[in-house]
Amino acid sequence: MVGVGLIGTGFMGKCHAMAWNAVGTVFPEAGKVKLVHLGEANEEFARRRAAEFGFIRSSGDWRAVIEDPDVDVVSLTTPNQFHPEMAIAALEAGKHLWCEKPMAPAFADADAMVSSARQSGRVAILGYNYIQSPAVRHIGKLLDEDAIGDVNHLRIEMDEDFMADPEALFFWKHEAASGYGALDDFAVHPLSLISVLFGRVARVMCDMAKPYKDRVTDNGNSRPVETYDIASVLMRLENGVAATLQVNRSAWGRKGRIALQIFGSKGSILFDQERFNELQLYLTSDRPLEQGYRTVLIGPSHSPYGAFVPAPGHGLGFNDLKIVECRELLERIAGRPSRTIDFAEGLEIERTVHAMARSFDEGKWIEVR
Amino acid sequence: MVGVGLIGTGFMGKCHAMAWNAVGTVFPEAGKVKLVHLGEANEEFARRRAAEFGFIRSSGDWRAVIEDPDVDVVSLTTPNQFHPEMAIAALEAGKHLWCEKPMAPAFADADAMVSSARQSGRVAILGYNYIQSPAVRHIGKLLDEDAIGDVNHLRIEMDEDFMADPEALFFWKHEAASGYGALDDFAVHPLSLISVLFGRVARVMCDMAKPYKDRVTDNGNSRPVETYDIASVLMRLENGVAATLQVNRSAWGRKGRIALQIFGSKGSILFDQERFNELQLYLTSDRPLEQGYRTVLIGPSHSPYGAFVPAPGHGLGFNDLKIVECRELLERIAGRPSRTIDFAEGLEIERTVHAMARSFDEGKWIEVR
Amino acid sequence: MVGVGLIGTGFMGKCHAMAWNAVGTVFPEAGKVKLVHLGEANEEFARRRAAEFGFIRSSGDWRAVIEDPDVDVVSLTTPNQFHPEMAIAALEAGKHLWCEKPMAPAFADADAMVSSARQSGRVAILGYNYIQSPAVRHIGKLLDEDAIGDVNHLRIEMDEDFMADPEALFFWKHEAASGYGALDDFAVHPLSLISVLFGRVARVMCDMAKPYKDRVTDNGNSRPVETYDIASVLMRLENGVAATLQVNRSAWGRKGRIALQIFGSKGSILFDQERFNELQLYLTSDRPLEQGYRTVLIGPSHSPYGAFVPAPGHGLGFNDLKIVECRELLERIAGRPSRTIDFAEGLEIERTVHAMARSFDEGKWIEVR
Amino acid sequence: MVGVGLIGTGFMGKCHAMAWNAVGTVFPEAGKVKLVHLGEANEEFARRRAAEFGFIRSSGDWRAVIEDPDVDVVSLTTPNQFHPEMAIAALEAGKHLWCEKPMAPAFADADAMVSSARQSGRVAILGYNYIQSPAVRHIGKLLDEDAIGDVNHLRIEMDEDFMADPEALFFWKHEAASGYGALDDFAVHPLSLISVLFGRVARVMCDMAKPYKDRVTDNGNSRPVETYDIASVLMRLENGVAATLQVNRSAWGRKGRIALQIFGSKGSILFDQERFNELQLYLTSDRPLEQGYRTVLIGPSHSPYGAFVPAPGHGLGFNDLKIVECRELLERIAGRPSRTIDFAEGLEIERTVHAMARSFDEGKWIEVR
Repeated sequence: MVGVGLIGTGFMGKCHAMAWNAVGTVFPEAGKVKLVHLGEANEEFARRRAAEFGFIRSSGDWRAVIEDPDVDVVSLTTPNQFHPEMAIAALEAGKHLWCEKPMAPAFADADAMVSSARQSGRVAILGYNYIQSPAVRHIGKLLDEDAIGDVNHLRIEMDEDFMADPEALFFWKHEAASGYGALDDFAVHPLSLISVLFGRVARVMCDMAKPYKDRVTDNGNSRPVETYDIASVLMRLENGVAATLQVNRSAWGRKGRIALQIFGSKGSILFDQERFNELQLYLTSDRPLEQGYRTVLIGPSHSPYGAFVPAPGHGLGFNDLKIVECRELLERIAGRPSRTIDFAEGLEIERTVHAMARSFDEGKWIEVR
Repeated sequence: MVGVGLIGTGFMGKCHAMAWNAVGTVFPEAGKVKLVHLGEANEEFARRRAAEFGFIRSSGDWRAVIEDPDVDVVSLTTPNQFHPEMAIAALEAGKHLWCEKPMAPAFADADAMVSSARQSGRVAILGYNYIQSPAVRHIGKLLDEDAIGDVNHLRIEMDEDFMADPEALFFWKHEAASGYGALDDFAVHPLSLISVLFGRVARVMCDMAKPYKDRVTDNGNSRPVETYDIASVLMRLENGVAATLQVNRSAWGRKGRIALQIFGSKGSILFDQERFNELQLYLTSDRPLEQGYRTVLIGPSHSPYGAFVPAPGHGLGFNDLKIVECRELLERIAGRPSRTIDFAEGLEIERTVHAMARSFDEGKWIEVR
Repeated sequence: MVGVGLIGTGFMGKCHAMAWNAVGTVFPEAGKVKLVHLGEANEEFARRRAAEFGFIRSSGDWRAVIEDPDVDVVSLTTPNQFHPEMAIAALEAGKHLWCEKPMAPAFADADAMVSSARQSGRVAILGYNYIQSPAVRHIGKLLDEDAIGDVNHLRIEMDEDFMADPEALFFWKHEAASGYGALDDFAVHPLSLISVLFGRVARVMCDMAKPYKDRVTDNGNSRPVETYDIASVLMRLENGVAATLQVNRSAWGRKGRIALQIFGSKGSILFDQERFNELQLYLTSDRPLEQGYRTVLIGPSHSPYGAFVPAPGHGLGFNDLKIVECRELLERIAGRPSRTIDFAEGLEIERTVHAMARSFDEGKWIEVR
Repeated sequence: MVGVGLIGTGFMGKCHAMAWNAVGTVFPEAGKVKLVHLGEANEEFARRRAAEFGFIRSSGDWRAVIEDPDVDVVSLTTPNQFHPEMAIAALEAGKHLWCEKPMAPAFADADAMVSSARQSGRVAILGYNYIQSPAVRHIGKLLDEDAIGDVNHLRIEMDEDFMADPEALFFWKHEAASGYGALDDFAVHPLSLISVLFGRVARVMCDMAKPYKDRVTDNGNSRPVETYDIASVLMRLENGVAATLQVNRSAWGRKGRIALQIFGSKGSILFDQERFNELQLYLTSDRPLEQGYRTVLIGPSHSPYGAFVPAPGHGLGFNDLKIVECRELLERIAGRPSRTIDFAEGLEIERTVHAMARSFDEGKWIEVR
């Protein structure tokens, strides 16, 4: 029986709570969990959330969660500037950690988190949920099986439109203090997919752009935007593959697009997170007259879809990916093989992001390592 | 605090269990639930499932669940030939009921279930989950708002391929005792959508067909197939609209298709359950040069998507629909407005199915009532 | 060298003219043609069109075209009430005939045209262009090769929205004298596809509906609409397959949809004329994990695409289908095998349409023959 | 009456011939043309082609075409290494010129062609057909109307798979003498679209890659591939927009993809040449609840579709674009406004391609001018 603590109850906090509530029913073989202690900004709010989310105890101080002896693993879902302090404290208290990405605004802090995790000997993973989808897993399986031959070209795009409105007011994400822009917000997700499917990135050459130079502040003045909503990156992976990455958080019409195009010597694979219950596969082993992209709807034979629904084509949802992630965490805690991005691998993703930003500043290719 | 009993733990039983575990976290305002008592075919199995699904008690006899004074509502997910006895017993024991569809193989039994529900004064609803999806709800809203004008034509298809393999052995669904075939298996779902979107069906004219006349039995003999995997129905709704319904459970390539085409005087709407996180809308109020079907990805403004994910386009899954259904049940139990298909309305759906079968037998149009 | 006459220069007349101008370049092996004589309603108009379309001579009287000794084949593209007189005259004058569909408003007239064609011994074909597309031809090839096994179910829909506007004035297509409605306008096209792909229709049961009961006339009064824009038909083909046909000429959003769903024992095929450069194929011979509809883009290996473009995926257009049809006509005139629907087969299509209308009137299944 | 000469009768030569045969019928107002003189590699072949394509005269020497006094305009469709000599000779002979792209392998030769055209005072245009499609024209109209606001980001991809087979033998396109690779083959097409929709490219930063390092020659040896099938380019347009261009001629599954993503402050536009009869438009002026990409099928209101088909959604084909291009050429010859890419603008496109190659060589951003 694994005791669970949760710190933070926003979008991701609720998402973790749903996963913890569901994991035992969906994946009974992963072991039992007990929702022990929830921490929020104040006691009243914490108490309400604990009641909603089914936690036994609650506190207005996150340290109480970390110090609770019945808590074995902590879900850390606060804004990422709080991650370093809380994560390191939790690890030092001997807790396993399920921390939302990105790790920390500053690379040095992320690096310290990795050191702390290593010293603690505890499991410390990051919330990269998109790697958990049955379609992405099946893509990995196809690549492992050499279904499309040697991959020679890769394109990834991630686009949303939550910052696309030019009339929207200046807010903290427009300040340089929040990071580079779309690179921080988005690029880590495609990089997590690259990490599990292809390995690491060797070299990058990035361009960034601002769709809107200035924005109105809430007091009616205009203020220059300091972050970049658009980034485009030429890349070479460590395995030699030529790749590109494009991200845009001001792309009107895109809601949750993470689009992959993977080209190989015997076929190709397309995928879009906006329709993540399907993938497109082109195989040259098909009869030439009928070669074409197959729209494969995921089903029980695409693990772990079958744990959710025994019939194909019925569809998983975004939150279900978090339940899978939760299962993987439990597997890792139990010392079994798991599909997770731990702090060490997460640091490599963040290293890549910082290299991209540097290549833009310097106008030249940068070696990630 | 609503006490929950669950009878049956197959596909739908697990689906109910997931919903009961999640509903408090997703919809905190719907009230608290307590997973009290799980019933299965024997004690050992019941005990294991109760542990997995988070129920406090378990029994090898379903009557123990019904008689448990801490149980307020019973999820009934056994095969539908058991529904009449169990449902009526639960209602007589004063429990609310969440019963999987269809109600019962025989119309008279379904009718008796309605009477029992009426006499009991308890809430008794059926598990028609597809009516709960944000896209279907938004279609209803569009129709209510007259967005596409007067609807004049409707086409619905529901297709899967789980019986499409001609080599698959003869099994109970091929026996006449199991019902008509695709009409029982599938037609109730499209009819549930018609029920919430358009009202009742007035007249039907049905054709049915068998893709495979005979099948091999497990002892190697050939046996005639007695049920119809394909049905096509001409319909007139009570509101005068001309409609068609087509169902096929041997349709290779279709996994969970429920496709609607709704044509009105000012536009049209398309929907397919296989991509149920989007709908297609054509409006003549758009500038003529740019009229076209809009692919609308559901998001927080399409209730109740926002309770699951605050960002648009991230997608709900099949199981999430059951969580919504669970919320609606709690709302109804609490005496608040709800979107549910109760036994009385469910009986009308089954009446329509039986009328379809009769129209096929008699080769002529049949008035449903 | 085949001498060509053309009567009528509307939509279809221009389409024939384009085909006659192009056929020699696209299909040099089909033989040479000479554009000899164009007939229109008056001499001035005929002269102008002849100049535009590249015809040597022109006349304001269609009989002059038919009597021209240099004319070997006549393209007949006038409104279909004129077909019987003109077609029979042309055949009696010993000309081959390329007549637009449908043959004639009255079945008896169509029947007389068939007799005339038989007696003349000349080639007399109808302008069913959709049967000529490479995708439809490839579907035929797949069926012949047993790629999807025994076909057991077929659905065809044809929808456009040119009559969908409820504010549009009453015009001749709303009068009963114009025929039944969508059955005349549209049903012949899907039936032509059924004819080449599956053979004839045995039994039909049809429902028809009017989206708008009345329309305003150009003098501002309201007048009841006498024709049916919507028709839905249950069918059994002579080969035993259960099928449905649905047509709607008031279907907002549909522009040129002719959608086929063909289900067999080993796969299925989807096609939509709105994207007629592709087809969807599902095969159970694919590995189960990656079964899905393949979007096959037509290319040079799908005859006769290669005569137009040597590279795949570049797309043919609607008018190209007429060029193919023209080639088939030349092949037939030359006594070579061709893919054509001649008057005899066209009569069977019209017989089926009339049977559909009768089944609606009588509310029961009708045997076509 | 414009007299036409044609040199070369391969893929593009036939395409020109089809256009010259059709233009008078499709666009009668564009003026009359006369197919005068066809030149091919030898007299016998020329005679045969002239008969097929409907030309009056033929020659085995291209100079005879250029010197023919009845020829006003020459279609030049030979391999592009022959363009400079033939084009300059034709211009010096006072002929208008319709030359296939790219202009010439060497920039200096293209430059000389521009000078020659300027001195001649004749019309000299390049065969950039993709700019002629109704959808691309409508995109231009939408941009001009500010429908999607200020464009801030642009992505273009062009992919085919005709060189994707790793087993295919080494041939001339693998030699450095043929150019850079995909940049020459493909990049000029997307650049032509950028030219008509957005203007010129200011700066470029390119990466290129080889999917296969070596190929087998026809004598069975292995030989290093010298050209790049893959290119990815970061770009800044002269109007300040950040853009990317990606091309791949070894992209299994892609047949004729030219995909645009255009993001603006009020919406976005998507387009793919593989389905060039439709475009996708997202507008923030739509009600938020129903915002989504509209699939607009081109029709008569999207000029010049209506000259081909009077009904919407019926589809143009690849060759129809050449007919439109031919009309534009005739308009330009007649001194009327036209949508054409002339030698001067074509040179800018080729200058951009050469800048891309240089940026790859030097590993840094290059200013195009």
